[in-house]
Amino acid sequence: MTERPAILISSYIAPELAERIRAAAPAYEVIYREDLLAKPRYAADHNAPVTRTPAQEAEWRQLLGRAEIFFDFDFHNAQELPELAGRLRWIQGTSAGIGQLVKRLGYAERTDWRFTTASGVHAGPLAEFALLAMLYFTKDLPGLQAAQTARRWQRLAMDQLAGQTLAIVGLGKIGRSIAAAGSALGMRIIGTRRDVSQPVTGVAALYPPDELPTLLRQANFLVLACPHTAETEGLIGAAELAQLPRGAVLINVARGAVVDQPALVAALHSGQLGGAALDVTDPEPPPQDDPIWAAPNVLISPHSASTAVTENERIVTIFIENLRRWQAGEPLLNELDVERGY
Amino acid sequence: MTERPAILISSYIAPELAERIRAAAPAYEVIYREDLLAKPRYAADHNAPVTRTPAQEAEWRQLLGRAEIFFDFDFHNAQELPELAGRLRWIQGTSAGIGQLVKRLGYAERTDWRFTTASGVHAGPLAEFALLAMLYFTKDLPGLQAAQTARRWQRLAMDQLAGQTLAIVGLGKIGRSIAAAGSALGMRIIGTRRDVSQPVTGVAALYPPDELPTLLRQANFLVLACPHTAETEGLIGAAELAQLPRGAVLINVARGAVVDQPALVAALHSGQLGGAALDVTDPEPPPQDDPIWAAPNVLISPHSASTAVTENERIVTIFIENLRRWQAGEPLLNELDVERGY
Repeated sequence: MTERPAILISSYIAPELAERIRAAAPAYEVIYREDLLAKPRYAADHNAPVTRTPAQEAEWRQLLGRAEIFFDFDFHNAQELPELAGRLRWIQGTSAGIGQLVKRLGYAERTDWRFTTASGVHAGPLAEFALLAMLYFTKDLPGLQAAQTARRWQRLAMDQLAGQTLAIVGLGKIGRSIAAAGSALGMRIIGTRRDVSQPVTGVAALYPPDELPTLLRQANFLVLACPHTAETEGLIGAAELAQLPRGAVLINVARGAVVDQPALVAALHSGQLGGAALDVTDPEPPPQDDPIWAAPNVLISPHSASTAVTENERIVTIFIENLRRWQAGEPLLNELDVERGY
Repeated sequence: MTERPAILISSYIAPELAERIRAAAPAYEVIYREDLLAKPRYAADHNAPVTRTPAQEAEWRQLLGRAEIFFDFDFHNAQELPELAGRLRWIQGTSAGIGQLVKRLGYAERTDWRFTTASGVHAGPLAEFALLAMLYFTKDLPGLQAAQTARRWQRLAMDQLAGQTLAIVGLGKIGRSIAAAGSALGMRIIGTRRDVSQPVTGVAALYPPDELPTLLRQANFLVLACPHTAETEGLIGAAELAQLPRGAVLINVARGAVVDQPALVAALHSGQLGGAALDVTDPEPPPQDDPIWAAPNVLISPHSASTAVTENERIVTIFIENLRRWQAGEPLLNELDVERGY
């Protein structure tokens, strides 16, 4: 009797989702050992700390050695994975941005390993967060809350998103989803993209990365939705923030390192930036004494805006389609270009 | 030389908007006496208290007697207006909901007076407010703010608007604008409307008013965007709130009297309602000791969500078109049906 190749589910998903994978992949042994997985602290938690007895850890390491395919990275044994996972050929990630992780862990050198991302799963939730952030500042929600706390009823005029310019850096799935939401509310959308040869639905003007200043000068709202690569690291610094119209709002749903955070804090204090909504910071979490926590008009979300309660269901759907493609030798969905970083 | 009929601008608008009216209506004398108008406390304030010297007041009353057309109601002399405004034939309001006001002031009996509303001007701003309110509760913004204040970085899963059911009572211009915004984000839209013979774009199911319970049972978000009439007064009481799924969110951009406010407060305390965003209350402003101010999960906006900074420009555009129609004897835009109340 031939041993079937194994799929190791290495971060927690609901038992019924594991069953879906098992039903979709009869040619594989699907290893789902809930007792050995980190307990999620919230729905779709893929970063929970794991506690295993030495016996459990030994058993887990033995499973790492058996699997050809991982559903998610093993962050606990990340450094040793190349030695431990002798049969590994493909990791399906649960995040959209895994390029820097793969580089940092040295996995990029493993040319026999392939990586697929969860790209697409987070576009909807992040568009909702970007919209919340824009409305939060445009309608002066903190002002409404303060008036309510003081039981003060004072009529006022509110600004509108309609007619304002939303500038998006990075028009991948996330950026395009934000563009669609802003466009539906009557905003004018502009954006940067490496490839400007094709128009993007709902985007009025498209600029290549080297025309970033032209984009910045028009932005009432600047949304960062680009991957973290060598080119985008520190992309928005003091000079770029100074090119924005005074009072513009920055929204970062990309990676903290895309922004020079001390420059951001300074721009919030000077009023050059009217607000910032940050789902990502540099570093994460920010240290207790980091000035970002209490900068004026900053809204911080703990890298969770992309984590929808239904996320795992959607990632499993991608994974099952990828399993079919893997077995058929077809191109995988969301395959990471290790060199490019996304 | 014949005296031209007069238009009296009776609440503050910017001088350039008064000029636009003057240029559009050469057959009229346009009376714009900034010195006699209430000073706006914010852009598009149409409710500011007015202070005039006795001489100024006498002059103002004399102007009231001369005008055939008013741009906005005179709230200061509201009771005496029928005696003071002997030539008045038409009032262009600056609000969408003037039906109850016209009834309360007894103007409804003046069959020689016509009234037009600012309907349409507020649809976009109110859709933005409704979206902010839905995102506020769905993303647990108060929880994010509390974590930030405590400098606590704890990842979590957020709910999504996409896939949830948005139930709208009243699918006029405001309701339809909210429907469009929710639909663009992937929400399922249902609604009630007096006339259900015609489908409404983006609305999956349309119910007549007497099927309200069917609507309520499906609503993750219940938005009130109906006019305040005898039929809608107290429409949402304890029984209706109990028909909502537990944890549903109520958003009122209609009028405070559409909701039984003590029942609303009770439903917030019991958790039957997961949240309420109120741009309108009953009464307005709520007294200092009104329990609505500090009910759990309530967000109060001082009847200002409809007041966009660009509002007057848009109302003047309606008024100028109506002036043309008035002179041509054509039907006016947004004419109030006094009997129906909107």
